Amino acid sequence: MAVATIVGAGLMGSAMAWPLSDNGFEVRLVGTHLDEAAIESCTRNGFHPRLKRTLPPRVRPFRFRDIDQAVTGSDIVVSGVNSSGVHWIAEQLADRVRPGQKVISVTKGLHVDDDGTLRTFPELIAAGFPPAVRAAVPVAAIGGPCIAGELAGRRQSCVVFGCTDAAAARDLARSFATSYYHVWPTGDLLSLEIGVALKNAYVVAVAYGYGMLEKQGGPDEAGASMHNLASAMFAQATCEIGALLARLGGTPAFATALPGAGDLYVTSMGGRTARLGRLLGEGKSYAEARAIMQGETLEAVEIIRAMARLLPHLERKGTARPDEFPLMRMLIALMGEGARGELPLDAFFKGVFSAGA
Amino acid sequence: MAVATIVGAGLMGSAMAWPLSDNGFEVRLVGTHLDEAAIESCTRNGFHPRLKRTLPPRVRPFRFRDIDQAVTGSDIVVSGVNSSGVHWIAEQLADRVRPGQKVISVTKGLHVDDDGTLRTFPELIAAGFPPAVRAAVPVAAIGGPCIAGELAGRRQSCVVFGCTDAAAARDLARSFATSYYHVWPTGDLLSLEIGVALKNAYVVAVAYGYGMLEKQGGPDEAGASMHNLASAMFAQATCEIGALLARLGGTPAFATALPGAGDLYVTSMGGRTARLGRLLGEGKSYAEARAIMQGETLEAVEIIRAMARLLPHLERKGTARPDEFPLMRMLIALMGEGARGELPLDAFFKGVFSAGA
Repeated sequence: MAVATIVGAGLMGSAMAWPLSDNGFEVRLVGTHLDEAAIESCTRNGFHPRLKRTLPPRVRPFRFRDIDQAVTGSDIVVSGVNSSGVHWIAEQLADRVRPGQKVISVTKGLHVDDDGTLRTFPELIAAGFPPAVRAAVPVAAIGGPCIAGELAGRRQSCVVFGCTDAAAARDLARSFATSYYHVWPTGDLLSLEIGVALKNAYVVAVAYGYGMLEKQGGPDEAGASMHNLASAMFAQATCEIGALLARLGGTPAFATALPGAGDLYVTSMGGRTARLGRLLGEGKSYAEARAIMQGETLEAVEIIRAMARLLPHLERKGTARPDEFPLMRMLIALMGEGARGELPLDAFFKGVFSAGA
Repeated sequence: MAVATIVGAGLMGSAMAWPLSDNGFEVRLVGTHLDEAAIESCTRNGFHPRLKRTLPPRVRPFRFRDIDQAVTGSDIVVSGVNSSGVHWIAEQLADRVRPGQKVISVTKGLHVDDDGTLRTFPELIAAGFPPAVRAAVPVAAIGGPCIAGELAGRRQSCVVFGCTDAAAARDLARSFATSYYHVWPTGDLLSLEIGVALKNAYVVAVAYGYGMLEKQGGPDEAGASMHNLASAMFAQATCEIGALLARLGGTPAFATALPGAGDLYVTSMGGRTARLGRLLGEGKSYAEARAIMQGETLEAVEIIRAMARLLPHLERKGTARPDEFPLMRMLIALMGEGARGELPLDAFFKGVFSAGA
């Protein structure tokens, strides 16, 4: 029987157990120190408290101290940690993965070095492996619009698996794909990771207007909300994701598909990133919003900060101008101490509608 | 004082009175036979019952029998009729507009002749004008994500004005633009009209999954909705709009901006088109859904039917293959008598993620 080991028993990591189990895998679900209560419950009666569901057949919970046993003999290792755990998981896997295994990560984020080099999370994970392992163990990433609770409910979900080793992406796609989990493999890992990361940042902007609405006391006497503003933000976000993909050597078409527009839609439907946007739209400073959302992982903030480091490098290299990406620059301003972002609407859509002019 | 005449006192036509009034125009709001109650109320106490708002200053309501007086001396004529009124408004304006005036239409839709020729609504309106008038009176269109009730509430809104006469589009944009109504002029009328029309069709697909969810009794015991499916539909819709723009001689970049992704977002947030999609997703036939929504204008249905006429022409010309546009083909199937659309998810995103393969 094929074996898959999931390290990290949070929402998304744990949800991966469903398609794997339905495809006949033995699934080993390893909790980190953050997941002790979840693993304890799973061990006792098979119920995952955060997903609010009984695990599917053939899923065995493991405590972290048993990770060696869990990874040994596994065909696939899923990294289910969040963005703050990427360096940690790289260390944990470095001495444990073996040629013949494949690693796939659910984590969203972008890493920008001080010199402006952009690195994907699979690259960061692989960088920690010994050279012989690095050459033989592909590290892939999952991106696209997928709420974990819906995947675990076997709702129709469409995602992309990216790996610089395209054959490995295809193999992994075959292992995970079910009648409800549709997987598109791609060798263009960079575009996948950029699209997925950026959409997380831009959701803050889509939600911002709804916060402004709350501050004004909600819909007015005739029931007017702020969907017009949200949709303008959405459109500019999609345009900026496409333009950033182009400038960073990626494939702009990803912006219209699952890792761009699709993922932006699903993330706008609720959750912690949209909540951050609403708090900022209500007029709270980032520090105030951060305090209200204490303890919650906010990948969007790390991604906006990575873009704050990256944009000056792009400007120096001449691949971006200071008047470009006005929405990302608004988000960067919002992360400043007490800074209020002006709505830069008139700077949107530069050049998009100039055809036929 | 500059004068603008709005013909059609429905939601969107009437909402145009706000930016025009705020820019100092005298606004003449002419009701059609559908708007008698609205005009009567506006005349009595200035309150527009459908918009649930008191009209702004300098707006004068007119009955349809006074249209001659209303159009005479007007600088701008706004056509506020819906898609079934396009031929009617063309006839009404044909003998009344004069060189020096400009016409702009809020109507969404696409017209496909029996020979597969695609025509925009401004083209249809202008086609009815006497040749001398046609040469001297530009006809423009408004597109982009704009809920009328939000515009009338002076909420931030971003739209595109398209006209084959790009200078006229720019002039019109200057007349309407305010601190809350942001207008991008374009000479690429065709792309604007295709984008705006298609998004209306595709919203039926985005909403479809929520209907499936209703049929299953709503979110499951763990609270799982169907946002993953909606977002996959959304992404494929954005891809198909971009591809159709390319095939029809338009500008694919519009698909990521206001007339594509942005407009798809706002229309997905509710309204009659989304309601049609939900009814179909619940398993109702089109005839059943149509009966439930009796009396409501469904531009989406006309647009899907126009695409049903257009696609075979594109295939004959070799500009589209039968395996392309699976989501539009699902929508076309849903409009059939009792036909049920299969979800064609595995046919989505063809070629999009092949980079690096």
